[in-house]
Amino acid sequence: MEMPQNTVDDLRLSGGMSVRELVRQLRSSGFQGQNIGIGAEIISEAKRNNAFTFLSFTSNMAASGLRGIFIDLAKRKKIDAVITTSGSVDEDIIRSAFPYLQGSFEAEDEALGREGINRMGNVFVPNDRYEFLESKSSEIFQSIYNERKTLTVSELLDEVGKRMNENSLLYWCSKNSIPVFCPGITDGAFGMQLAFFRQRRNDFIVDGVSDFTRLMGISMGAEKTLAIILGGGIAKHHTIISNIINGLDYAVYVNSSSPYHGSLSGATTSEAKSWGKIKENSKSVTIYGDAAVVFPLLVCATDEFFQ
Amino acid sequence: MEMPQNTVDDLRLSGGMSVRELVRQLRSSGFQGQNIGIGAEIISEAKRNNAFTFLSFTSNMAASGLRGIFIDLAKRKKIDAVITTSGSVDEDIIRSAFPYLQGSFEAEDEALGREGINRMGNVFVPNDRYEFLESKSSEIFQSIYNERKTLTVSELLDEVGKRMNENSLLYWCSKNSIPVFCPGITDGAFGMQLAFFRQRRNDFIVDGVSDFTRLMGISMGAEKTLAIILGGGIAKHHTIISNIINGLDYAVYVNSSSPYHGSLSGATTSEAKSWGKIKENSKSVTIYGDAAVVFPLLVCATDEFFQ
Amino acid sequence: MEMPQNTVDDLRLSGGMSVRELVRQLRSSGFQGQNIGIGAEIISEAKRNNAFTFLSFTSNMAASGLRGIFIDLAKRKKIDAVITTSGSVDEDIIRSAFPYLQGSFEAEDEALGREGINRMGNVFVPNDRYEFLESKSSEIFQSIYNERKTLTVSELLDEVGKRMNENSLLYWCSKNSIPVFCPGITDGAFGMQLAFFRQRRNDFIVDGVSDFTRLMGISMGAEKTLAIILGGGIAKHHTIISNIINGLDYAVYVNSSSPYHGSLSGATTSEAKSWGKIKENSKSVTIYGDAAVVFPLLVCATDEFFQ
Amino acid sequence: MEMPQNTVDDLRLSGGMSVRELVRQLRSSGFQGQNIGIGAEIISEAKRNNAFTFLSFTSNMAASGLRGIFIDLAKRKKIDAVITTSGSVDEDIIRSAFPYLQGSFEAEDEALGREGINRMGNVFVPNDRYEFLESKSSEIFQSIYNERKTLTVSELLDEVGKRMNENSLLYWCSKNSIPVFCPGITDGAFGMQLAFFRQRRNDFIVDGVSDFTRLMGISMGAEKTLAIILGGGIAKHHTIISNIINGLDYAVYVNSSSPYHGSLSGATTSEAKSWGKIKENSKSVTIYGDAAVVFPLLVCATDEFFQ
Repeated sequence: MEMPQNTVDDLRLSGGMSVRELVRQLRSSGFQGQNIGIGAEIISEAKRNNAFTFLSFTSNMAASGLRGIFIDLAKRKKIDAVITTSGSVDEDIIRSAFPYLQGSFEAEDEALGREGINRMGNVFVPNDRYEFLESKSSEIFQSIYNERKTLTVSELLDEVGKRMNENSLLYWCSKNSIPVFCPGITDGAFGMQLAFFRQRRNDFIVDGVSDFTRLMGISMGAEKTLAIILGGGIAKHHTIISNIINGLDYAVYVNSSSPYHGSLSGATTSEAKSWGKIKENSKSVTIYGDAAVVFPLLVCATDEFFQ
Repeated sequence: MEMPQNTVDDLRLSGGMSVRELVRQLRSSGFQGQNIGIGAEIISEAKRNNAFTFLSFTSNMAASGLRGIFIDLAKRKKIDAVITTSGSVDEDIIRSAFPYLQGSFEAEDEALGREGINRMGNVFVPNDRYEFLESKSSEIFQSIYNERKTLTVSELLDEVGKRMNENSLLYWCSKNSIPVFCPGITDGAFGMQLAFFRQRRNDFIVDGVSDFTRLMGISMGAEKTLAIILGGGIAKHHTIISNIINGLDYAVYVNSSSPYHGSLSGATTSEAKSWGKIKENSKSVTIYGDAAVVFPLLVCATDEFFQ
Repeated sequence: MEMPQNTVDDLRLSGGMSVRELVRQLRSSGFQGQNIGIGAEIISEAKRNNAFTFLSFTSNMAASGLRGIFIDLAKRKKIDAVITTSGSVDEDIIRSAFPYLQGSFEAEDEALGREGINRMGNVFVPNDRYEFLESKSSEIFQSIYNERKTLTVSELLDEVGKRMNENSLLYWCSKNSIPVFCPGITDGAFGMQLAFFRQRRNDFIVDGVSDFTRLMGISMGAEKTLAIILGGGIAKHHTIISNIINGLDYAVYVNSSSPYHGSLSGATTSEAKSWGKIKENSKSVTIYGDAAVVFPLLVCATDEFFQ
Repeated sequence: MEMPQNTVDDLRLSGGMSVRELVRQLRSSGFQGQNIGIGAEIISEAKRNNAFTFLSFTSNMAASGLRGIFIDLAKRKKIDAVITTSGSVDEDIIRSAFPYLQGSFEAEDEALGREGINRMGNVFVPNDRYEFLESKSSEIFQSIYNERKTLTVSELLDEVGKRMNENSLLYWCSKNSIPVFCPGITDGAFGMQLAFFRQRRNDFIVDGVSDFTRLMGISMGAEKTLAIILGGGIAKHHTIISNIINGLDYAVYVNSSSPYHGSLSGATTSEAKSWGKIKENSKSVTIYGDAAVVFPLLVCATDEFFQ
């Protein structure tokens, strides 16, 4: 066994200190502070080595302030592919036009329901947002349908992006040729509208299968790969299974689930090595925490994101 | 505020006591024991009222002993629809022919990888299982393709079930006309083979969109509905969003995630009421625990499952 | 690396099946079901080998139905020492006379406060219970003081037990010479009354230090040792630190905390081996779950507890 | 029901941005980011109103970089009382002289044990640190014993502080008359040495009971009170139970446990209101996360800590 050499150091905070400096100190402070520091180092090294960067996240992230970071990274071409859930499409379309509201985890849900407010943790979404989404989606589908009858899901989302404004992640992904993969496209309000639209126009074919080969082609073609995976579920799994042939070179997971129940959401970067989804000699870390807090720390600490 | 009347009672265990009697006692014992007791009461009432029963689970459940319960419930027509992930199809096909192995959470993952063993928590899956899955899937796709060129995902899984043996959940679902919905069908090894097959036979169309309208039709047509939701992710969300028009009458969640990070995996039955996914005056409970332990308790305690 | 041999088996449930049979099946079912099965095997082997049995638990357990199991095990001399928190003394004294009530996790806490109801998860404790505790404690202290002026904490709790009825854990521990250790005796309502009593009678000396040497003497004198540790905090830590000289031979933890934040509450049996608190070649397992559910399963599955 | 007015805003990060600015933005970003923002506002308001400040933490915090913040706050008199566990005394004495080492959560514990390295999450503590602690503690006890034969625990820790160097939290607490309460003083290596010392010098009386009345006197005498509670266990409970007469005016909890198992470690600020431990109209928040990450954010964002 190798003896550890590095000391755990006391934090020395100051009034106006930068996030970057805090993360640098957390690196030697212990527990998840240490893991955040490691995560920042991994991302930084991967970016310096021009690793192809997969960003994976769940829809609640797109409903929170993190969406601003995603937009900024896409705008400045710091990410190369997005893998997410259908709900993220909902949140992006709505929030490009209307804000969500700050709520409370302790709200009385039955009363909220009667008031027409949908709760997502401490984020509130009034019903009118979904009414907007429904009409906007239908309008977009009609517009796309007028041009093309057959698309893969990633092509569909690219077309959606072309029809959005600058306050949209899909817009910037589309503009900067960053493909957006969504392996469970129907599972959300956008997907429901898609299913309804298709009932009326059954020559509108959205191919949910071919994206997988496209995505595997991307991962196999990249010289080096980095995956930043926020949260769990299908977005997380799809990111790592798509890299099973070569294995990821760099991986940073941010989980709020624990690994002891066998769920993929709680699965570790270590476990992924047994599958070959992450290379044996990769640099990787699993950070246990709320991505809404951890991801901003990681981003601020990565100089390569701001160059 | 209504004053509570029921007392918390000391448990009185005996040597050969039944699971049913234990769950009855847990009902008044406090913490998650109480919630398990409530869950059993809800399921029992729903079954007595002939509620249409949705069973939702993640793939790790199909990799564990729970699969035996799913098979038994499908065989005896105690569930009416299944909503799950692509990984569950993998586990079902493989385990109908080869067992998984008992492993350990603490195993050395890099060594496992070198030995060709894939780890899922404390369940080990040797590589040869996936080799079997690949050839079996290809064979099944070819056989289906010979008969039909266009199917929805639920039709595809019905066809797969027809080609399985009695030691398969898909077999019993197919035989007993229990539809299996899988909104993210590509996200697994079966899905990968499907994508590869389609590359070679591009007239083989698997429609990933229409199932949503089928599923919504089912939920809207049912007089009363019960959802038993084990774990989170897309299987959980798809189950509840499909019930958004009428709202579920009965719902039992078994979660290992917590609600404080806004994830759907950790979202509560209470939160679902704000969305109308569960009816305001429904009977519902969120049980915090490992479904691999909690679900057997719920099933044993539900007499209606054994009549 | 040793190849695993045992298969993961599908569960086969039946209507009136016993808890013992369920746990036997869970042993090969995966995830925490497997760990519960392992835990039951460890306890069973330890009891067959006459291991000295430490039972450690937090006060919420004593507020729940688990107290009935603790009482039964003490009555039938199946445990040899108890290590717990001050709150457990509160719950035992109160519940020997008055029941707690079934509440709800979602209750409106400010309203409860105005009604004089204290919430502990989904267990409610009306204020009058604490009024009873205050007068009962004062009466007991006076009675003890009349006989003895100086005691260790474990002697104090033995004296309290002598003054309780048969519906009390302290009563049975006292009657059966099972020492009860409480390293943080002041931290509860009983402890507060003790502090108030001592203000008036400063010749009443409760020695909070000497119990540690007594407890270490016990652990060092035992040929084989088993610790069943439910929950975390000081009760857990005190149990394992008291065994640091020889190391525990058998250990079963039931945790709801996770190990990733460095807390002792979430610390694993594996970590304890690095400290020597658990022997290197011991049999031990960490079960992730709610002790209110897991402990009854473990007890029912251990035949040695019912012989 | 009151309609929420505040929007959830996208985060806008920049390269050298300050922690203070990040926390300000997190306030309107959702999930635990929002709760951290609320926590910072509460602490800031409490400090502006000169609230008496209780700082509560578990020993793992003292083993991590957080100890540097505790020392700094004590040095600059920004906290008024400390409530902690015995392990924190161990960590403070050792780390005033020797560093702990950066380890790994995945280390092989049996090998560590053979190498004489004790693991606390990803913090490693070589055995020689405890040898130092043993001799240092004995020396300190002898020195105190030469001067005084009877002390309360808080007086003992004050005397210990007088015998430490500037790289110690106890030193600064002692120097600045910040009392340190430790309701479970024996439960650690320092406590074990205390028990051994007392065996030889039985006229050395450490009173573990009277501190509770001292602490309650402090809380009842304060005009306004703030408690910052990092982690759970006895340190958390003792802080809130000591405030049960008046109720805390301001409270910020940072938990990694969840409330669904009835443990005090996972109990919420809301639950504490039912008990009156926190005032009904107080300002309080429960932040779910790793204190090793969250506390530095809270401190950097509180200008009052740096004035």
